[in-house]
Amino acid sequence: MKTRIGILGYGNLGKGTEIAVSAANDMELVAVFTRRDPSTVKILTPDVPVVNVSEIEKWTEKIDVLVLCGGSATDLPEQTPAYARLFNVIDSFDTHARIPEHFKNVDEAAKESGHIGMISVGWDPGLFSLNRVYANAILPDGEDYTFWGKGVSQGHSDAVRRIKGVKNAKQYTIPVDEALEAVRSGKNPTLTTRDKHLRECFVVLEEGADAAEVEKQIKEMPNYFADYNTVVHFIGEEEFLRDHSGMAHGGFVFRSGKTGVNKENNHIIEYSLKLDSNPEFTTSVIIAYARAVKRMADEGMTGCKTVLDVPPAYLCEQSGEELRAHFL
Amino acid sequence: MKTRIGILGYGNLGKGTEIAVSAANDMELVAVFTRRDPSTVKILTPDVPVVNVSEIEKWTEKIDVLVLCGGSATDLPEQTPAYARLFNVIDSFDTHARIPEHFKNVDEAAKESGHIGMISVGWDPGLFSLNRVYANAILPDGEDYTFWGKGVSQGHSDAVRRIKGVKNAKQYTIPVDEALEAVRSGKNPTLTTRDKHLRECFVVLEEGADAAEVEKQIKEMPNYFADYNTVVHFIGEEEFLRDHSGMAHGGFVFRSGKTGVNKENNHIIEYSLKLDSNPEFTTSVIIAYARAVKRMADEGMTGCKTVLDVPPAYLCEQSGEELRAHFL
Repeated sequence: MKTRIGILGYGNLGKGTEIAVSAANDMELVAVFTRRDPSTVKILTPDVPVVNVSEIEKWTEKIDVLVLCGGSATDLPEQTPAYARLFNVIDSFDTHARIPEHFKNVDEAAKESGHIGMISVGWDPGLFSLNRVYANAILPDGEDYTFWGKGVSQGHSDAVRRIKGVKNAKQYTIPVDEALEAVRSGKNPTLTTRDKHLRECFVVLEEGADAAEVEKQIKEMPNYFADYNTVVHFIGEEEFLRDHSGMAHGGFVFRSGKTGVNKENNHIIEYSLKLDSNPEFTTSVIIAYARAVKRMADEGMTGCKTVLDVPPAYLCEQSGEELRAHFL
Repeated sequence: MKTRIGILGYGNLGKGTEIAVSAANDMELVAVFTRRDPSTVKILTPDVPVVNVSEIEKWTEKIDVLVLCGGSATDLPEQTPAYARLFNVIDSFDTHARIPEHFKNVDEAAKESGHIGMISVGWDPGLFSLNRVYANAILPDGEDYTFWGKGVSQGHSDAVRRIKGVKNAKQYTIPVDEALEAVRSGKNPTLTTRDKHLRECFVVLEEGADAAEVEKQIKEMPNYFADYNTVVHFIGEEEFLRDHSGMAHGGFVFRSGKTGVNKENNHIIEYSLKLDSNPEFTTSVIIAYARAVKRMADEGMTGCKTVLDVPPAYLCEQSGEELRAHFL
């Protein structure tokens, strides 16, 4: 019997989840829930109902794992604990600093109702977290380095768009090659914020806006840009829509650590992602972990879980025997 | 209370294990077992006894995890099942094709006696296996690529040393840069054995040996060299001992996979290791997993386990709370 998946929220993540479910032989999409008028939401999969979220309680017996596709700022802190009372749920909550609080809320709700609530699944947090944990366990004496990009930062793009005179903007976070190479070569460099990432902005101005003033405001913006080298390009709307609508992203996680009687041997562990579509990759991770949620729930586990709690074999359709024969 | 570690076999892996235990705050080495006369084995840690393996049964209550540091060809197929009847054990069995059989033997012994027997821990099998499994679960539609090196292949070095006229030899396996770049760029190339790795041999000849004949025998050796581009260097013994005694190694695991309604988006997951000391890194992995063995045994689990069965959090000294706060 296939694992029955429900989706709550049909933006980029909801659509990515739908695509990832269709690529999995052992899963089926049973419903998409939306806060909008369901008749206005067109999904890809034929014959799957789009349902207003007000009716979601009728579906508790028909769904094995509900994938929460809302945003981390306001949706998930409310939704994940609330829906963990009704379903096994999984989210991609990515506000690192608030993970302990989110964990606690979801853990309480999921334990009370006997469900699994898996949080912060994706690539960072998610796969990058896994790599930080594995590498730190293996090389206790070492340095961690995480780089992001090249990819669009939604938060920085929003910050530029809030500047007076800006009609539209995209901000790319770009890891600095020299810094990557210094880490890769085992130099264990001390890197400032400015050393690690470059910020590149593509900006469409409102008519009559003062380009020099906009550029100054971007480059001096505290927290977002002031500590970085920032490049600003002003471009036309046509070029903006043509060249800057992609959702590529990626990044690098390194650990450089020492072993030996005199710590004379250095080891570099590098993990990197180069992704054409950030939401489609994120939801591919989520769907692999949804498989684990189903297994853990079937085994009687309850409460909040993260990627750190999941044995890798639980992510796979294949049996342990097949995995040992083909992948070990 | 610290996890009490025993080591069986004191070669490169035994010594690496000793170093890794000393770097872990929550572990202590309690004994080293050897088939040799114990008085001839000098270890690094003061006040730890070296004991003949014939006395190992007296230590069953004093050791939490016994690390088996023998070879995969003849030692571990016998030792791991035998000692899993007495102790929780962990090994680095690396003959990929025989893992299913080894698993079965260890599983029977460990289940009967109520122990954990963890097998095939290291980097390949081990960390590379983990990455293959994670990446396949996330990107079901894609291609896997594994490259090894630059590093010494013991098996290939031995094969060269068996040739008449060869006094000493080291063989380095070297991944081909063009192949790495083709994979990294998302071209999903079809690569032959020859495309992926180069083999480089440093050979010291016996006096009067025929260099041309030795080179021919190396390059035409079936399975080991015939399918590769091979470079042979003849050098003096002094240079050999000075420049070719290192134990550096490494490698790369890639998955290149597609998502999207029309499979229009490609994603590259790359994992790589650059290791100054193969045995010290391997045993650093083993010691992290020895921590997991202790936890799994404490929870009442028994039988044979691999890295695919272990939740990442079990590898760490830190609590789940600390891991979520600092690494997730």
